[in-house]
Amino acid sequence: MTYTLILLRHGESEWNAKNLFTGWVDVALTDKGRGEAVRGGELLKEAGILPDVVHTSLQRRAINTAAIALDAADRHWIPVRRSWRLNERHYGALQGKDKKAIKEQYGEEQFMLWRRSFDVPPPEMPDDDKYSQAGDPRYADLGDELPRAEALKQVIERLLPYWDAAVVPDLRAGNTVLVAAHGNSLRAIVKHLDQVSDADIAALNIPTGMPLVYELDEETLAPVVPGGRYLDPETAAAAAAAVANQGR
Amino acid sequence: MTYTLILLRHGESEWNAKNLFTGWVDVALTDKGRGEAVRGGELLKEAGILPDVVHTSLQRRAINTAAIALDAADRHWIPVRRSWRLNERHYGALQGKDKKAIKEQYGEEQFMLWRRSFDVPPPEMPDDDKYSQAGDPRYADLGDELPRAEALKQVIERLLPYWDAAVVPDLRAGNTVLVAAHGNSLRAIVKHLDQVSDADIAALNIPTGMPLVYELDEETLAPVVPGGRYLDPETAAAAAAAVANQGR
Repeated sequence: MTYTLILLRHGESEWNAKNLFTGWVDVALTDKGRGEAVRGGELLKEAGILPDVVHTSLQRRAINTAAIALDAADRHWIPVRRSWRLNERHYGALQGKDKKAIKEQYGEEQFMLWRRSFDVPPPEMPDDDKYSQAGDPRYADLGDELPRAEALKQVIERLLPYWDAAVVPDLRAGNTVLVAAHGNSLRAIVKHLDQVSDADIAALNIPTGMPLVYELDEETLAPVVPGGRYLDPETAAAAAAAVANQGR
Repeated sequence: MTYTLILLRHGESEWNAKNLFTGWVDVALTDKGRGEAVRGGELLKEAGILPDVVHTSLQRRAINTAAIALDAADRHWIPVRRSWRLNERHYGALQGKDKKAIKEQYGEEQFMLWRRSFDVPPPEMPDDDKYSQAGDPRYADLGDELPRAEALKQVIERLLPYWDAAVVPDLRAGNTVLVAAHGNSLRAIVKHLDQVSDADIAALNIPTGMPLVYELDEETLAPVVPGGRYLDPETAAAAAAAVANQGR
């Protein structure tokens, strides 16, 4: 027997479309993004891979992607769990900045370091910045745990306690689990599941709105097929290439 | 100190618009219904009455109304709880039937008895009817508890265990609680809170998409103002009158 996990990155957001660093800024989906979420749900329904429970971040673009996709799959009624630990990487002082402008200002090398280095976070977001989350009521309980800038390493560190405490028990109870989240929180999960090295994870990109399905060994939770499988593999490969080219 | 409870009936559904008996049939919101949900959320935000937790039925029109209203109120990230016990009254064999045609076929007296009698349910829905919920996976765990026709009395009987076990603890923990549900499941809650008699509840109608706010005594959970208050009272009064006239 295996357990089934579905990873779903939110559809295009307003700031994906504008090519801005987003991170914890709570932007909405575009019409295209909502359409991607519908398609993601339809793919699940067509494949007969039906979530029994959904986990989301506390961010609008993941929450709405989950709601739209589940509605399209006729699974809108399943239990919902949410955690800040599934949030996107906190992009620090880069949040709200134009990706192309940052690359021109700081150069290709620094730009790629901030985007894809495993453990070098960007400069911290000041609490008085308009794109800071310091006063956001949804994070009021976090105290000193509130991130002000993260690299992927820090995302993994704050995500894994939730993975172990909330997602794994749902899997072990035999549920098909949907995790609707973000490019970097999903990369963190993929790195953990597939034991991708710190170096190799830099090249791994997850496209928006494409269900990525893992069958996990019931003892070890290791993927039966490393890397899982996209329900729409050709479109997913093209979309992942587009993600890798952002800011170029 | 008081506790704050917000009741929100789903916005107009496709079958509200077509004047069909709906009950447990899982129809979608209309564009108008989605607009009502947005307005409901805006009213909450303008009034500064912000839900900390939301309870919904297992039905699409209530689930989506909650999601849309909370998004408009910037509270999309709060915890979500769902239960079939908050579902609309099961309308039995009337589900899917035209309200006006039923009235003409059975007469005004029988029609009003089915619509508003406290304890006379309509004829039961056969399990092989296309509008039956007998094979619906979301109700697979109910067994013999699955309703096949209900009057308001039966709605109250299946709703109150959830009220006591799930909603009241959230209130007593100090949360502002939103219940997004249906005309008859919300009438059941209002009857319970305001101790409305079996006879008087027949005349009480709840409009779609209008937040109804109760402040509840922290000891007794009795409403400080009987009947609560609508955030947009004039529109609510006109809308309630329209509900009362359905099928006329």
